[in-house]
This record gives sequence, C-alpha cells and structure tokens, in this order.
Amino acid sequence: MNERARILSEALPYIRRYHGKTVVVKYGGSAMQKDDLKTAFARDIVLFKLAGINPVVVHGGGPQIDKALADAGKQTKFVRGLRYTDGDTMDIVEMVLGGAVNKQIVRLINGEGGRAVGITGKDGNLLEARKMRAKGDVGLVGEITGVNAEVVSLLLGEKFIPVIAPVAADGKGQTLNINADTAAAKIAVALKADSLFLLTNTAGVLDKKGKLIEELSAAHARRLLKSGVVRDGMVPKVECALDAVKGGAGSCRIINGDKQHALLLEVFTDAGAGTRITPN
Amino acid sequence: MNERARILSEALPYIRRYHGKTVVVKYGGSAMQKDDLKTAFARDIVLFKLAGINPVVVHGGGPQIDKALADAGKQTKFVRGLRYTDGDTMDIVEMVLGGAVNKQIVRLINGEGGRAVGITGKDGNLLEARKMRAKGDVGLVGEITGVNAEVVSLLLGEKFIPVIAPVAADGKGQTLNINADTAAAKIAVALKADSLFLLTNTAGVLDKKGKLIEELSAAHARRLLKSGVVRDGMVPKVECALDAVKGGAGSCRIINGDKQHALLLEVFTDAGAGTRITPN
Amino acid sequence: MNERARILSEALPYIRRYHGKTVVVKYGGSAMQKDDLKTAFARDIVLFKLAGINPVVVHGGGPQIDKALADAGKQTKFVRGLRYTDGDTMDIVEMVLGGAVNKQIVRLINGEGGRAVGITGKDGNLLEARKMRAKGDVGLVGEITGVNAEVVSLLLGEKFIPVIAPVAADGKGQTLNINADTAAAKIAVALKADSLFLLTNTAGVLDKKGKLIEELSAAHARRLLKSGVVRDGMVPKVECALDAVKGGAGSCRIINGDKQHALLLEVFTDAGAGTRITPN
Amino acid sequence: MNERARILSEALPYIRRYHGKTVVVKYGGSAMQKDDLKTAFARDIVLFKLAGINPVVVHGGGPQIDKALADAGKQTKFVRGLRYTDGDTMDIVEMVLGGAVNKQIVRLINGEGGRAVGITGKDGNLLEARKMRAKGDVGLVGEITGVNAEVVSLLLGEKFIPVIAPVAADGKGQTLNINADTAAAKIAVALKADSLFLLTNTAGVLDKKGKLIEELSAAHARRLLKSGVVRDGMVPKVECALDAVKGGAGSCRIINGDKQHALLLEVFTDAGAGTRITPN
Amino acid sequence: MNERARILSEALPYIRRYHGKTVVVKYGGSAMQKDDLKTAFARDIVLFKLAGINPVVVHGGGPQIDKALADAGKQTKFVRGLRYTDGDTMDIVEMVLGGAVNKQIVRLINGEGGRAVGITGKDGNLLEARKMRAKGDVGLVGEITGVNAEVVSLLLGEKFIPVIAPVAADGKGQTLNINADTAAAKIAVALKADSLFLLTNTAGVLDKKGKLIEELSAAHARRLLKSGVVRDGMVPKVECALDAVKGGAGSCRIINGDKQHALLLEVFTDAGAGTRITPN
Amino acid sequence: MNERARILSEALPYIRRYHGKTVVVKYGGSAMQKDDLKTAFARDIVLFKLAGINPVVVHGGGPQIDKALADAGKQTKFVRGLRYTDGDTMDIVEMVLGGAVNKQIVRLINGEGGRAVGITGKDGNLLEARKMRAKGDVGLVGEITGVNAEVVSLLLGEKFIPVIAPVAADGKGQTLNINADTAAAKIAVALKADSLFLLTNTAGVLDKKGKLIEELSAAHARRLLKSGVVRDGMVPKVECALDAVKGGAGSCRIINGDKQHALLLEVFTDAGAGTRITPN
Repeated sequence: MNERARILSEALPYIRRYHGKTVVVKYGGSAMQKDDLKTAFARDIVLFKLAGINPVVVHGGGPQIDKALADAGKQTKFVRGLRYTDGDTMDIVEMVLGGAVNKQIVRLINGEGGRAVGITGKDGNLLEARKMRAKGDVGLVGEITGVNAEVVSLLLGEKFIPVIAPVAADGKGQTLNINADTAAAKIAVALKADSLFLLTNTAGVLDKKGKLIEELSAAHARRLLKSGVVRDGMVPKVECALDAVKGGAGSCRIINGDKQHALLLEVFTDAGAGTRITPN
Repeated sequence: MNERARILSEALPYIRRYHGKTVVVKYGGSAMQKDDLKTAFARDIVLFKLAGINPVVVHGGGPQIDKALADAGKQTKFVRGLRYTDGDTMDIVEMVLGGAVNKQIVRLINGEGGRAVGITGKDGNLLEARKMRAKGDVGLVGEITGVNAEVVSLLLGEKFIPVIAPVAADGKGQTLNINADTAAAKIAVALKADSLFLLTNTAGVLDKKGKLIEELSAAHARRLLKSGVVRDGMVPKVECALDAVKGGAGSCRIINGDKQHALLLEVFTDAGAGTRITPN
Repeated sequence: MNERARILSEALPYIRRYHGKTVVVKYGGSAMQKDDLKTAFARDIVLFKLAGINPVVVHGGGPQIDKALADAGKQTKFVRGLRYTDGDTMDIVEMVLGGAVNKQIVRLINGEGGRAVGITGKDGNLLEARKMRAKGDVGLVGEITGVNAEVVSLLLGEKFIPVIAPVAADGKGQTLNINADTAAAKIAVALKADSLFLLTNTAGVLDKKGKLIEELSAAHARRLLKSGVVRDGMVPKVECALDAVKGGAGSCRIINGDKQHALLLEVFTDAGAGTRITPN
Repeated sequence: MNERARILSEALPYIRRYHGKTVVVKYGGSAMQKDDLKTAFARDIVLFKLAGINPVVVHGGGPQIDKALADAGKQTKFVRGLRYTDGDTMDIVEMVLGGAVNKQIVRLINGEGGRAVGITGKDGNLLEARKMRAKGDVGLVGEITGVNAEVVSLLLGEKFIPVIAPVAADGKGQTLNINADTAAAKIAVALKADSLFLLTNTAGVLDKKGKLIEELSAAHARRLLKSGVVRDGMVPKVECALDAVKGGAGSCRIINGDKQHALLLEVFTDAGAGTRITPN
Repeated sequence: MNERARILSEALPYIRRYHGKTVVVKYGGSAMQKDDLKTAFARDIVLFKLAGINPVVVHGGGPQIDKALADAGKQTKFVRGLRYTDGDTMDIVEMVLGGAVNKQIVRLINGEGGRAVGITGKDGNLLEARKMRAKGDVGLVGEITGVNAEVVSLLLGEKFIPVIAPVAADGKGQTLNINADTAAAKIAVALKADSLFLLTNTAGVLDKKGKLIEELSAAHARRLLKSGVVRDGMVPKVECALDAVKGGAGSCRIINGDKQHALLLEVFTDAGAGTRITPN
Repeated sequence: MNERARILSEALPYIRRYHGKTVVVKYGGSAMQKDDLKTAFARDIVLFKLAGINPVVVHGGGPQIDKALADAGKQTKFVRGLRYTDGDTMDIVEMVLGGAVNKQIVRLINGEGGRAVGITGKDGNLLEARKMRAKGDVGLVGEITGVNAEVVSLLLGEKFIPVIAPVAADGKGQTLNINADTAAAKIAVALKADSLFLLTNTAGVLDKKGKLIEELSAAHARRLLKSGVVRDGMVPKVECALDAVKGGAGSCRIINGDKQHALLLEVFTDAGAGTRITPN
C-alpha cells in the first residue's frame, strides 16, 4: 500500500476520537522560537480546525518580553527571586504580548489557511483578575477570579481560531500580567474542554529514576508533587494540570514542544509523547 | 521530522481545498470485491466526513446480481446484445442492490466509525424515472427524469453518509433498474457537488498512444469521443462525466479503484491518479 | 347537514388529540397482503402525516420470506419448534425485508402522496443487537441492546415518513434477524412515542369468556398473562405492549389490521376497535 | 368499508393540495348569524389549522353595527344612498367590530380547540389607510394604502389563528371604517395567500341564464362585469376577487356561507360549491 | 458640558440595569385621561422598547366604562357596595375595554413610532378565569385561574408591544370582567417579569405619619396591611404587589402616574418616586 | 415637566432613526487624549449599543506612536515630507496600536459596562492590504485591497463592540500600517453601515467664507475639493467620506470630537454639529 495513504488512513480512529471536541493549547517555549517549529505548530492548529476539532491557543512570550525590556533599558527589580512588575514593565509586557507576539501567531496561523483572531484577557471581559496576594508583592501580577468565555465560544463556534494573550484588567481597570499556563487551564475549565495541552521544553513528568511517566492519575500526580519527585519548573505545570482536570477538563497533556508536529503526533497518531494527566 | 507527521501535515492544503464541499462517489468494480480495498474505501469515506467533506456513495452491484440470478436459475435473455430485464429479474436486482449490497456497504462504513444510511432511488422519491426509450426495449431499465435530493441533503447536513442503490420507480410504481454511473452523475448535479468520482478498474482516459490523460476539458473530451479515441467501456464513463460537469458539478474524476485508498490519495495528496474532466 | 361534512367535522377532537404526536405502527399480517387493505393503510399513514401526526412504520414480512426460502429450495431446520436462522437464510431474510418488502411499502406510501424513506436497523446504527441468548441457539436471531434513533428523528422532523425493516448488525458486523413487534416497541420507547399500534389479525385481547377487552392497565395485562387467559400468539404481543408502556410510550393498541382503515378509525373516530393497554 | 373511514380517506388528496398553504377567509353574512353555522365555521377553521393549512379570518359585522346604532338612538344620514359615517358612528363601529364581534369569533374558535388571536387593522399598523376619495364624502370610510402583515405572519407561523376586524387609522390617528371584503383581498395579497374565500349569502356568480358558473378566469370575469351580467351586490365581490388574483393570490372562491361546513366542503371534498376565480 | 448630553449620558447605568428585561405596566388613572400625560406615557413605552426593555401594557378603563353605561341609560345595581356586572353591562365593558380603550392606547403608542398590538384575555386563551366566588355574587366578575402567556411572549420577542384589556372567558365561553391590577400581576408572574409598575393617582405607600415609604420588603408590607397603616384604595394595590413578588416578579413599583413621564423617570433616572416593594 | 424627562423623551425620534443600524466611528484626535472626552466617548458608545445601534470603533494613535518612537530613540526618516515607515518603526507602530491603544479603548468601554473586543486588521484576515504604490515609497504603509468583515459582523450580531486597530498584513505576511480614516471608510462600506462618523479636531467642512457647511452632497463635496475650498488636512477626510458614501454607506459625518459627547449629540439630538456628506 502507498505509504502516504497508510499513514493518513491510520489517523482515522484518532481523528474520530477528537472530532467535535475543544482543545486548549498553551503555546510557548522553543515551539515559539524556531521557524520550523512555528510553521509546524500553525499547520497542526489549522489541521485540527479542518478535522472538526476546536483549538484555542493561549500563549506566553517571555523571551520577547525580556528583549523588549532590555531594548527599553529597563532595569528589572527582583523581590524574593521573582521579577517585580512595575507600571512601565506592565505597559511593555502588554504591548509585546497583545500587540506583537499575539499578532505574529495570528499571522502564522492565517498564513497556513486558518482564520485566527487574537485577543487578550481584557477583550469581552474574558478574564477577571485581581492582584496576586499569595506570594508577596510582586507588583502588577494577577490571579484570575473569573472567566467570561462567551467571546471565545462565539469565535470557536464559527470558523475562527481564538489566540489569547494572558493580560487582564482588575475591577478598577489596572492592567495585570497573568501566567499563561494558569490562564490556559482556567479557560479550558470554562470551556469544558476535552483536553489541555501544555507545550514545554522537556519530555514530560519523570519518575524517581528519571524515566518518563506516560499516564498519571490526579491522585498519583499529587503524591509526586508532595514527595518532591516532581520539582522545579515542572511543579507549576503539574499544578496547572491538576487544576484543569479538577475543574472539569477531560485531561491534560504535558508535551515536548521542541519536537516538530508534537501536537499533531499527540492527537492524530499513537506516537504521542509526554505525560497525560487524567482526573482519576 | 517524523515521517508520519510530515505526511499528515502535507495533507493540509488538500483538506482545505475540499473542506465543506460535497463529493459524490460512484462505488463499484474491484473496489467492491476485494476485502482490503473495501476496508480502505470505507476508511476513506469516514475520513472525508470527519475532515468536513460530505461524501455521497452511489453503488452498483453487477457481480452480486449475476450470482443471484444464477442461483435462482434465471436464464438471461439478450436483446441486441443487452440483457433484457424482465419482472422477475427486476425483483432480484432490487433485492440484491437495495437489500444486500447496499446494507453491506452501510455496515462496512459504520464498522469504521461512520454513520451511513442506505436508501434507493424510491426513498423520499429521490429518483423519478421512466422506461428507457433510446436503445430499444430492454425491459425494466429506466432513465432518470428528475431528482428530489431533499432526503440526501437532509442526511448530508447531519453526521450521516448517504449510500444510494440505483433503483427507481416510474409514475405508476413500476420498479426500474438505473445505471449507477448515470445516477451518480444526476445526483451530483442535483446536489451541485464539487466533485464526482467514478471508481473504475482502469487507469483513466488514454490518448491515442495509450498514455493516461491527467486533465481533460469538456470540449477536449467531446472531441476524443467523436474521434473514437475514447471507446468501449470508457465511452459511457466519459459521457457521464460530461453530463455532470455540464449540469454544474465542479469536476469529474475517473479513478482506478483497484488501487488501495485511491480516493484518499486523490483528495488528500498530490499522488492522485486517473483523469480529471473539467467544465472548461 | 352534508354527511361528508359531518363526518370530517366529527374527526376534529380526535385530530386535536394526536396533533404533534409520534405514533409507531407495527405493520404486518393481512394488512400487508390484500391490495385494498394495503392501499387503505398507505392512505391512513399519509393522512396522519398531513394532520400533523408523525407516523413511523416498522414492518415484518413472514409470508414473503417463506416464499423466497421456498423459491431458493432452502430446507428449514427447526430447533425446539423454532426456525433456525443460518447464514444463507439470514441473507435471504435481509434481502427480502430490506430490499423487497421495505421498498414495496415505501412505494405504496409514496403512491398516495407521502414521502416515505425505507431503512433497516443497520442504517445510522439505528438498532444495536446481539445474538439472542434466552431461548437456546436459534441461529442468527438478535435481541436489541440499544437504539440510536437520530436518523428516525431527523426524517420525522421533516416531511418524511420512516419505514423500518427489523434487521440489525451486532458489534462484529454479523447480520441478525429481529422480531418486528419488539423492534417497534423499542423504537417507540426511544422516540418517546405517544402510541404504539400493533396491527394483528385478531380482534384484540379477549377475556376468559372470549369477549374483547377494550382497555387494559399494565397491571391487569400482567395478571392475564400470568393466569393464562392471554395465550398463544397474543402472549408476545402483550409482552411487547407492556415493554412499550413501561419504557415510556403513552399507550399501546392491539388492532385488527384485517379491517379496512383500522388505523384511521382508531385515531380519528370513536369507532376504534381492539385493545388499548395503558401504563396505569 | 366503513362509511366514516371512506369519507375521511377520500379527503386525502384535498388535504395534500392545501397543506402548508395560507388561506384568507372573509367571514360574514348568515354564517355569522346562525348558531349551527357559526359552530360549523369554527370547527372548519380549527380543522384547517390542524391539517397544516394556515387560515386567516377577516370579518364584517353589519347587523351587529346596525343594532348598536339603533340601541344608541343614532340617526343614520345618507349621502347619495350611502350611509355617512360620522365620528360617533365610527366610535360605535370600532367598539362593535373590534370589541364585540371580533372577540365572539375568537371565543367561538377557541371553544373548538383553536388558539385564535383577534386584532384590528390598527394593531401592529396592520392596515395603513386614508379617507376614501373615489365616491364622494361618505365620512370616516377608509381605503387601504398599505399592509404591514408582519403581525399576522408572526401569529400564523405559530399555532395561532389571526382574526381581523377591518378598522384602521390614517396617518393622523383618525379611525376609519374599511370594507371587509377589500381588507381580506389586500391581506391575501400581502400574505401571498393560496386562496381567498369570500363567504356570501348567494350561490356564486351566475351567467346570463342564471346558472352558476363554477370556474371563471379573470379575463372572463372582467367581461361579465363590463357586460352587466354580474350586477348588484355581486359587483364588489367580483372586483375584490379580481384585485386578489391580480395581486398574486392563487385564486378566489365566492362561496355560499349559508350552507353548513361550506368551507370544509370546498377545501376537503369535491362537493365544493360557488364560483372559483383564477388569474388566467 | 452640554446639559442635554449630560442628562442623556447619566441615563446609561439605568438603561444598562433594565436592558433585556420585561416590565409589565398597569396603565390607568389620570395617566389615561389627560392628553399630555397620555402622550408622555406612549413616548416612555416606545423609548423602553428601543432601549432593549420589553414593556407589556395592561390597562383599565373605569371612566370610559362609566360614561358608556350612562350613555346607554344603564342603571347600575349595587350589591354590598360593589357594582353588579350583569350581562348587558359585561357586553358594554368588553366593547369599551377591548374595542375602544385598547385601540386608543395602541394608536397612541403607534403614533410615537411603536408597534403596539392590542388583545384581551380571550385572545390566544391568554387568561383562564372563573366567576369570582370570594366576595359574594357580584355578577360577571372573574378571577384568574391560569395564564397562557405564549401569545404575549411571541409578540414581545419581536418588535411588538402587547397592550392587554383585562377581559376573559370562563370554560363555557362566558365573558368575565377582570380587575386590571390583578391581571397585570398575574401576567408579570407568568412572564417572570423583572418589574411590575402600577400607575396610580397617589404618591405611593405612606407610613403612619403620612410620609412616603420609598422601599418596602414584602414582609414589611404585610405588617403594614395587617396593622391598618395601608388602607382604603391602597390595600388592593399592595396585595397585588405582594402577589407579584411572591410569584416571582423581581419587584413592584407603585408610582404616581399623575406626574409626566413618571415611568421614564422611574426607570432611567434616580428621580423615581413612589414605593418599591421587593420580595425580601 | 421635569427637565430630565423632557430631554430623555425628546431623544425618542432620534433613537428610532438609528435603531438596528450599524455605525462606524473613526476615533482619534483630542477625543482620545483628554480624560473627560475619553470617558464621554466610551459612555456614548455603550449607550448606542444599549439603544439598539451597532457601533464599530476604528482608532488611530498618532501621539502614542510618536511618544513610543521617541522613547525608543528612533530617528524618523522623511521622504517628500512623509514619514518613512521602516521595519523597526512598523514593529513599534503595531505594538502601540494593537497592544496598547486598542486595549486602552477596550478597557475604557468595558469600564462603562460595554463588552468591547479589540482586534487588528490581521485578525480573521479582516483587512487584506498591499504596500501603497501611489505616493512614492514611504515604506511599510499599506493600502486596503479587500475586507473580510465576518469577524466584525459576528461580534456585532452579539453583545460585543468591535474596536479595530488599522494594522494589516500583505499576502506574504508583511505587516503594514494603514490610515485609520481609510480603514474606517472601507469597513463601513463592507458592513453596509448606515453612517460613518469621523471624529476630528475641527468644526467640519467650511465654505469659501469660512462658514461651516452642515450638509453636503457628494457632488458638491467633489466640486469643493476641485476648487480648493476644501484643503490641507480636510482633503483626505472628505475623500474618505466620498469613498464611503460611494461604496454604499448611508452618509458620513465629519464631527468635532473636541466637544464632549459629540457623538451622542449628533445621534440623539438635533444639536449635532459638523458636516454631513450624503450620496446625493
């Protein structure tokens, strides 16, 4: 049999599995830096849409922000190891995320034949937030207190692909910076999404011996957090995943975005990599 | 890059091209006889549906009819070289096409996860017909005088895949046998289909030197018919194709159904084979 | 007053009673054999549809099957008094029910101005079934394990009249023969039908003294079954009726289909005959 | 065959003919005076609605108005033989038509199970009118200058039966009395009705020898008007009919409302009486 | 700032508060007698509709009825201080309310650019009623036993403004007079209205010292009724208000309709007057 | 009468005039700089939405861009008096318009209770553009070659208020700066808007003697352009207006945005100022 035909045909059960479902993709890391990964990502997203899957993209933009702050000669102040977001920084963050990065992603997707629409958490009051309190005063960093997903649902229900920059306003109109993973998780919950995909730069969750765990129940994940097996940068990722599945998302995948077409392989083949965290 | 990912990803522009379009597939010949071809066909049809393409299947069933007539000890009468369809033969044809072959195809498609619904030209008055007059009295053979495609459109607009056996009734309720290629062409016209695919057992239309012609305008095709370059079994196929594109179908492909996943390759890759006949 | 006007006008309260309701009619017996009864049945069904009632026809076809088996020189094997359905028999049953009888009924209804669409339990996965286990191995006889009535609802909601042949496939694609009364009852439940009409060749349920019982609560019917007053061929009819009303159908009528326009009289006049079985 | 069944069944082709159509009925004369005729009328209207026909009733109320004017001791002034409608008379006409007669008809229809809604030409600005100019000053008598049928269409599209009293307001809010036949014709045109039925107290249009003409083309009707064969009270009826069919109504029937169930017989049987005026 | 601009702009939060809500207005008293108040009322109602509020008007008509009864030389019989409504009186009441007053209000609203549609409780079986029993035999006075608000909802959902005369029929078709305040309250409950506005000729509910009470919980209102602080004509108003808020209306305002644009001021400014009765 | 009530009530005919219409507002100049004007603008826009008018905001951002370029120490190169937009400049323009200004306006409107959604011409492929050719090479400045307004219509049809930054991409993905007036005019044409409002810092179009012209036909406006009476900064405004009305927008108003609530006064009162340009 023609190889091409075989491979396309083998995608059938996977496409069937996701048809009509909503998936929220946290886009970031290498997948957002390298040209070939960027194009592959955009093609995957458009392919999802055409195959009857409803993708929602939530993106970060750390490196672009760092560069813009440097260009502006902005000195970063640190509070207990965390960057302090003052007013000027917030202005730059908002412009970079909402005006530059968001529109690059929109253009990337549209270049592959999609109809992406980029918004931030302020648009349609998508994200309600307040200054984060838990971790000391780190300035204009917000935590989400509510999600009004109507504008996303409206776009999703038509041919559009929503692309969301995690910036929000509090009740008084003060702009706040929101962690992109958290925003993606909250939006996945609000949309009752089938899946949340967190693109990272690592293979997934590793066990004590450094071996990749392919599937992980929420309970197991919580134990791994507690015992310290999950640590460093993976901690907030797993916490996010737990929030999502607890809130009603079907599952959360932590995927290595460094691999070309990681999303497509995850969804349309059995060659998926990374860790899948499920509610039970 | 992962081979699988590359191939899936390369299908993107083709899927985009057909998304939201209706395609009518005349299913017959080897593709309906061999198990691997049958499964591949069913998978292709379901994949089309999931990818937002609306397939309609019109099928023949010559070999099954021949076998049933032989089993019944039915002597075939020939009139000027054409089989004469008497009342008993017509009863057997209708039972075999509408009750056996049609339901096998339905089951085949549903086995791959589709939701096929099998009907004949009688259902919902889909096909209006009268006894054929042009070619002498060959008994209960009909020509189509009208198409009421509402029942097909209704199914198409939902998750269902219509599978149609070319049997019709005339105004007095007399059952008539209809040529499947013709029925497919007429239905393609009534649905304003984007494409009509005629699965055959040959490579496509050949030129004087026996070389495959990949693309053919209607005018060119008419010249080839006139000059006798197109001859024998290919004549009615090309006439059908011309009827379809003249009536408003976007194009007609004559494809070798003997090749596994011929449909999928035709639609989702640049490896399509056979001849494409276009209106201009 | 004009007699015609009086009679039409007296139908008003009955039409009002059924307007907008779904009724499932098990069609079989004499009503399917004699020409005048057949025409009267078809007119009744079309009249129902025009009067805003949604009829669904489920049919049997015993005599036609018997004839086809005899024509094929097929010896019937009996197991404990029940016909054993082997593979060849099943093929013939499916062709006769789905390809011949079903299409005759479709044509009959369409001849009176209806828009019937004939399907079997395989179409749209309408009936899910497995080999019957309760009564010993009688071959390819199935019991219904699920009903996916979407295709029927879709047709019903438009101008179409669904006509259903009780043939289904099990999970592996094996074709199974289903009792028509049972199929009608299960479909009535799935559609939350207002009424199930079982056309029989007898007057209805008789009491100990052989007198027709016009109305019967489910509890009363169960007592009559237990005490043996209901016996022979009436037992499965009453069991069917009990299944239907237990599952949520409004009521079940066992009607003598041997009487011309039995359905119409039952629905549009106070001259209805037969037995009405109600949930309470 | 059961007589009742036969008659109901014979109505089938007629019901099919009118199914989904809109019919405007001018209700007046004896049919509005005698109790048995009133009840029969109401049943016919409800039966139409249930059979998928959309009836709209436009009524007059001459006798009731006469009585109310007499009760009020109101002297009628005549101008060139026509009653002059002064302000007080108009007040009484509006109260009687819109407040008494209209609501009696509504109640009559609802008593037979319909859902009638009574309005006048003022409601929803249904009728735009101005003082009639053609025939000398006869006071507050109006001619229709526009029809805004949205409110009627809205009610029609649901389960309601609109009942309309022919009273309107001019641009300054002055109430005007409108001829009911004319109002019915204009509303039939605005609704693109299939039929306009004018209930009268006579058999229909008679030819020179006093014999009923059953069918009449518009051209023929115009000749009969010109030649004086149609005369007296039948002149405005025929003019109305011509206006309706010229404006796009399918046909107009002038029917003897003095006959019980005249409407039902006209629509559901071949026993219709009166004259049918067609566009060609 | 321009005064006009300031005032319009200050209406914003109030408009936002009521946007998309249904309000039922009992219209009567002076607001229905004086020309300037009538025009102001009509403009307020149309303004509500344009601002996305859905007004429903329920009206009385005491003075017009008194005048009509006097004109007709009708002697009023009193039973225990209450007017006895005999058959002739009821006929006049129905004609005056449904045929005269209702259409004047319709015309008034339409004159300001609205699309009012006037009906009574008989239309679409809006109000089901029976002879009132509680207060001795006062003739054809009804109490409401059911509300079928479909016809009102249908009109509301489009551009129409329903105007309702409180006349109903009992099960036998007997016409009954209904108290307008009560009808308004019952309709508000059936529509789950946000607010019920009762236009009166007094300032609102007064406390022991004769001072206006601006806001009143249901519990407090009940105490004032019991203690006799609320008395005379205000008793039925407050009882009505309590019925409405108990039944699910958001709140009830008793407003002085003698003040021009009382409704508009109540809804679109903080200058509202009268008493607001709330569920808690 | 209460002053407040009088003014609100007098707005009625104006609100009626605009109800259900789409208006495109080019927002810029002083109205975007001063806090009181900004708040007044946002309230006007929300008031429009609540009153059933569909506002679309297209904004510029010259001063903010100038400041950002200055902050970035970016030297502006001039070509024949026009600023040359190089790649770095374009990056800053896009970030400022799409990331900062756009979101400030969104927040401003949402702060007054609206549901604004901010996008740029890239989102949903709203604006198709190519490098401007007419005026010499001024770098990355674009002219619009197509408008895909589906995303705007989708938002408009729901409760959202689209806010558009005039940045677009050409076919190769190159970002281009678009004149905001032109973008507003093109979008007004694509939406078949009733009105285009251009907020400026001047009174409107002046005649030879410097007197404001309140209304101007397209033909007259063309003559004023030709004769040089319209000159300097007013030339492109008037050209824009002519493009809009020629393309099918109902009219274009050039309004002094320096006046508080200029929009509201223009739409809801007769105190509108500025110049109205009409097609004829």
